[in-house]
Amino acid sequence: MTAPILRFDPPGRILAIDQTLLPHEERLLELESVEAVCEAIAMLRVRGAPLLGLVGAAALALAAHRNGTGDDTLRRSAEQIASTRPTAVDLRALTEAALAHALGLAERLRVDALWRFADGLYEERIAQDRRMGDVGAAELAGIEAVLTHCNSGELATGGIGTGLGVIRSAWEAGSLKRCFATETRPLLQGARLTAWELVRLGIPVTLLPDTAAAALIGSGQVGAVVTGADRVAANGDAANKIGTYGLALAAARHGVPFYIAAPASTFDAATPNGAAIPIEFRNAREVGGFGGVRWSPAGHDAYNPAFDVTPNDLIRGFITESGVLRPPFDESIREFLGSTAKMRA
Amino acid sequence: MTAPILRFDPPGRILAIDQTLLPHEERLLELESVEAVCEAIAMLRVRGAPLLGLVGAAALALAAHRNGTGDDTLRRSAEQIASTRPTAVDLRALTEAALAHALGLAERLRVDALWRFADGLYEERIAQDRRMGDVGAAELAGIEAVLTHCNSGELATGGIGTGLGVIRSAWEAGSLKRCFATETRPLLQGARLTAWELVRLGIPVTLLPDTAAAALIGSGQVGAVVTGADRVAANGDAANKIGTYGLALAAARHGVPFYIAAPASTFDAATPNGAAIPIEFRNAREVGGFGGVRWSPAGHDAYNPAFDVTPNDLIRGFITESGVLRPPFDESIREFLGSTAKMRA
Repeated sequence: MTAPILRFDPPGRILAIDQTLLPHEERLLELESVEAVCEAIAMLRVRGAPLLGLVGAAALALAAHRNGTGDDTLRRSAEQIASTRPTAVDLRALTEAALAHALGLAERLRVDALWRFADGLYEERIAQDRRMGDVGAAELAGIEAVLTHCNSGELATGGIGTGLGVIRSAWEAGSLKRCFATETRPLLQGARLTAWELVRLGIPVTLLPDTAAAALIGSGQVGAVVTGADRVAANGDAANKIGTYGLALAAARHGVPFYIAAPASTFDAATPNGAAIPIEFRNAREVGGFGGVRWSPAGHDAYNPAFDVTPNDLIRGFITESGVLRPPFDESIREFLGSTAKMRA
Repeated sequence: MTAPILRFDPPGRILAIDQTLLPHEERLLELESVEAVCEAIAMLRVRGAPLLGLVGAAALALAAHRNGTGDDTLRRSAEQIASTRPTAVDLRALTEAALAHALGLAERLRVDALWRFADGLYEERIAQDRRMGDVGAAELAGIEAVLTHCNSGELATGGIGTGLGVIRSAWEAGSLKRCFATETRPLLQGARLTAWELVRLGIPVTLLPDTAAAALIGSGQVGAVVTGADRVAANGDAANKIGTYGLALAAARHGVPFYIAAPASTFDAATPNGAAIPIEFRNAREVGGFGGVRWSPAGHDAYNPAFDVTPNDLIRGFITESGVLRPPFDESIREFLGSTAKMRA
């Protein structure tokens, strides 16, 4: 990657590639205030559940430097950052983890400590993605083509990615020959971001309209479907980019395994099931057009949820940094989160 | 409708609205040669399985006037027209019906006879769509919202439409309150054409990205899914616009009835099942962009079938001009086509 996806520039700046301009332009955003970070998150200039976790933690460091290091100031800033997008669990989880870390220290130490905390998360993410990739490559051994949705690559995590990291690792292991990628309307992250990453990595990529996914899966050309997730509930119901549920239904119909690749930070033990995951609805203008172009006439309403929930019975397994979680997921997730917490303790 | 969708102007011209320019511009194409008609069909300027049947018959009249009325000339023209798009059965069926009609007459009568034949089909289509609408409105009684895909309205048939004709009739009957419409990538017939028709009819319409269909169906807001079809096989497997299969899978998961509205001419007794339906694959450039705009980087392949096949077990019923066909479809379709043939004989 020539331009860095995300770079921390303490004490007062975060640099991040503007993902809304890809694939045509690689422009770095220079984010120097909490407001600028929140705008970039809300507009999806910066996106991807795991990457948002890193950005949230760094934004709190930025907030401490710009706005002050008092308890109340930090708490307000953390809430402002965490509430920018409600579905992804990583953003709130890592912002609040950074906050808890800072509140345990003297005020004069907090700016430095928050930047170091964010740096540590970033390094951990890179290592974690690599481990997840190795786990996934082993699981996908022998499969020559997979289908993915939205973007769960370097642009989404800062490491090699979750779903796309697994795909990249399987490609590097030599078994995988091709990745099919959906366009992912309405914001076209598959066509713009995933295709861009795969072309740069030299992995053969076939793009398809979202409408063609069920036919493709039915055609027998795909050995597995692999995506990331924005939040996994305690029972294994998983929220991910809108359209994931439809892919999972088609995969189940044709006996094609459907996997979600996600690190521990994406699992939320406090959310019992999919019905408890808040779903963000986005601007109606995203439907019926893209960028400056409109296809639809005036006078219609729009239905535009950013995420859907795939029920646990459609999921073959969760590819994590410490192995593949298999059904029954309530047990395997509890065990996974327990051992992860122990490792951190 | 202010501009006519399709108008025959014997002996040497067919007028048709250019559907690629909708919803922003209503421009009439003046088609004065078989080549011009075939280009308009291939480029989807004129589209919709039932409408293509009418255009095919009229194009043979045009061919007789322009190129001569000899048996071989007519046969060649009919083949040229019918082979423009392989999946829709109406185009070949009605072009060949017109050919058979002409071949039974003296050469000097053929131009006039072919135009009268096309006119007769057009009138029959209008009446047929109305009957189909009444049948569908009765079937959908009590349902307040339906989801449709692609365009199966006036633009697709020349009458009130098949799927959209049923929706319009249910709206006029007073029970239906709202129609949800998918954008229908890659050519966006839902966003461009269905939304345009519904807005003009004053029927409340909610547009959604194709990716959001499974979530919408799962949300309980849709009482039925209703689409048209391009070809129905003898066992009830049905080819329709790419994406239909995915809607049917989601509908089945949630117990939402999935209906196809189609006239007798869309059923093909000679095609035993879905595997025998030829599927047209379209230009890779349609994926990763629209019109003059590109979203995807250079260097990817594309998977772009124009149609998919919905297996008969996912279909609740076929809404036709003479009633709703119910499972087992091999029997109900055989009976339907037998009685239709008898009516015509």
